[in-house]
Amino acid sequence: MTNSSDAFPWDALPIRDELRGKTPYGAPQLDVPVRLNTNENPYPLPEELVRRIAERVADAARDLNRYPDRDAVELRTELARYLSRTGGHPVTEEQVWAANGSNEILQQLLQAFGGPGRAALGFEPSYSMHGLISRGTGTEWISGPRNDDFTIDVAAARALIAERRPDVVFICSPNNPTGTAVAADTVLALYDAAQAARAETGGALVVIDEAYGEFSHRPSLLPLIEGRRNLVVSRTMSKAFGAAGLRLGYLAADPAVVGAVQLVRLPYHLSAVTQATALAALEHTDTLLSYVDQLKAERDRLVTELRAAGCEVVDSDANFVQFGRFDGAGGAHAAWQALLDRGVLVRDNGVPGWLRVSAGTPDENDAFLEAVRELMKEQSA
Amino acid sequence: MTNSSDAFPWDALPIRDELRGKTPYGAPQLDVPVRLNTNENPYPLPEELVRRIAERVADAARDLNRYPDRDAVELRTELARYLSRTGGHPVTEEQVWAANGSNEILQQLLQAFGGPGRAALGFEPSYSMHGLISRGTGTEWISGPRNDDFTIDVAAARALIAERRPDVVFICSPNNPTGTAVAADTVLALYDAAQAARAETGGALVVIDEAYGEFSHRPSLLPLIEGRRNLVVSRTMSKAFGAAGLRLGYLAADPAVVGAVQLVRLPYHLSAVTQATALAALEHTDTLLSYVDQLKAERDRLVTELRAAGCEVVDSDANFVQFGRFDGAGGAHAAWQALLDRGVLVRDNGVPGWLRVSAGTPDENDAFLEAVRELMKEQSA
Repeated sequence: MTNSSDAFPWDALPIRDELRGKTPYGAPQLDVPVRLNTNENPYPLPEELVRRIAERVADAARDLNRYPDRDAVELRTELARYLSRTGGHPVTEEQVWAANGSNEILQQLLQAFGGPGRAALGFEPSYSMHGLISRGTGTEWISGPRNDDFTIDVAAARALIAERRPDVVFICSPNNPTGTAVAADTVLALYDAAQAARAETGGALVVIDEAYGEFSHRPSLLPLIEGRRNLVVSRTMSKAFGAAGLRLGYLAADPAVVGAVQLVRLPYHLSAVTQATALAALEHTDTLLSYVDQLKAERDRLVTELRAAGCEVVDSDANFVQFGRFDGAGGAHAAWQALLDRGVLVRDNGVPGWLRVSAGTPDENDAFLEAVRELMKEQSA
Repeated sequence: MTNSSDAFPWDALPIRDELRGKTPYGAPQLDVPVRLNTNENPYPLPEELVRRIAERVADAARDLNRYPDRDAVELRTELARYLSRTGGHPVTEEQVWAANGSNEILQQLLQAFGGPGRAALGFEPSYSMHGLISRGTGTEWISGPRNDDFTIDVAAARALIAERRPDVVFICSPNNPTGTAVAADTVLALYDAAQAARAETGGALVVIDEAYGEFSHRPSLLPLIEGRRNLVVSRTMSKAFGAAGLRLGYLAADPAVVGAVQLVRLPYHLSAVTQATALAALEHTDTLLSYVDQLKAERDRLVTELRAAGCEVVDSDANFVQFGRFDGAGGAHAAWQALLDRGVLVRDNGVPGWLRVSAGTPDENDAFLEAVRELMKEQSA
């Protein structure tokens, strides 16, 4: 006989009630030939960059007995230079902040602008950490609507914002897991609605999550921060820089927003080795962005070939593709298992009828497409 | 004319009310010949270890496009081995958790065991981040009493625990900034009181902050976790391992506590380069602990020499010493400034009449002692 304390031993501890019966977030880590489930960049860093990382980390290690630069000024300067070059809008170090992954960026924003007695709104399905980190910081979570094609339903969104008056609004573009880019005028409509709804408390923070921004067919939404003090663009080096293992997220916004997150960040949150590694990677931006170009081409090929195989596919501006629909017996989970049985791991994000595949190397994508073609034949048989 | 929005530009944003008018936590970062203000280890890592870090980080960088081991199993295994060797008690990987500095360890514990509607208690003066992180996670902060010699007033502490029934109790040993070690029977008395006070909700979490544990004249309090499910020992590699720049904190406790923090940790919170660097440092434990022995001797010398110079000094089990008393005109801050004018930066932790100095190299300590002797002569003149 089992009881809940076997499955959830922490339930016997004086943990918060809302954590009881919960299990940790995270994609299954399975050992499978073709892993296309976590939107990682399939291209390892070039050996020249690996050597440069070792060099810069060795330099940092010689001073490792000292605390790191608490404000990461050199790194923020280089991130600002990168954004200015590629984001269509000049930004300075004072407008940029960095942390351990964009998850920590979002957590710091919610600690400063969300928290108990406040609410955050996102348009689901979207990156599930928006809701999880909101709840983890005591922020009420409000799930907003999307159209059937996964674009944001602007009229319904404006009505919901006016009604619920959220303190923080998340707009994920390109959206994870659907791949959907958000048009600039949609962002502006939601921004204006959010400011109007909370005009008497200084407005609401609007966070554009551009974790997959570099893979989009459209330009970055970065220029929208100009003149909009409550607009934040968050980014990561995990995907475009092929550095998921580095955990380096950052944001661009008004300098006052950077000041605000400094009030809640843990002191010395960003290690000297993380700063050194990120700086090395930024020296190799051009090489890494050439991999992004290859991945964009592969992503477009996946969309085309999946449609040719008879799948429904959501237009994608990210390094992944949402495909379906698996509405038959077993739904998306059965299709996920059928692909896994063929040695291909994709992601079931819990969107009914749909699965998500990350763009891998050409060989990985070929293996995936072959597995899908077999699956679709079976399903139509 | 200035107004508050010049000094606090974030006050114009919709930040949480309790952050208005606040400035970020952190010691002043001043460029001074002798910096003894942040309890850093003055000895750089040996060059052999620097090379090993570069090697292990290069290996990690070859896989940096993938997410890091979310559960940091290899690192936790090596930390468990280190604790088992040096802490007087065998622990396994299942009992150990690691994060970006002990600050993040404490934040994760408070997210799981504190938070809105809950309270944490510490005995002040102590490490100010205990209170700051409590408040940052929405946990009410209760300041407990110490005796005049900075030991914990056990009778008063038990009464306060019974009255206020905190969900989390912090015991810092050796205590920062006073250097005071806490006796095992004091810990047990407070632990029992905290469990009794919250018996009907499964007890209270008691966190022993042993950031400076390796510098103590006494053995670690680690063995106390045996059979006490709600007792946690937190540690850091910042001080004893000379790796403040690495940001690697860890805890040892019942495996259920490790499970609980995994419910609130950000996924993939610990980067592959941090894990690789920490593993390299753990390979060099013996060398680094020999530096600890030198620092303990220097710390004891500081206590003796400061007393010889006419200072009052609190017995220290840490790599720093609290000295005073500066009760005259200007108090501790004037003495801090007088030492700074002589090129020596120490810390004014806001304990009236007292300052804190970190044990530096023999030369740094000589310079500090010389400055203090001049100051004491001036003050008695």
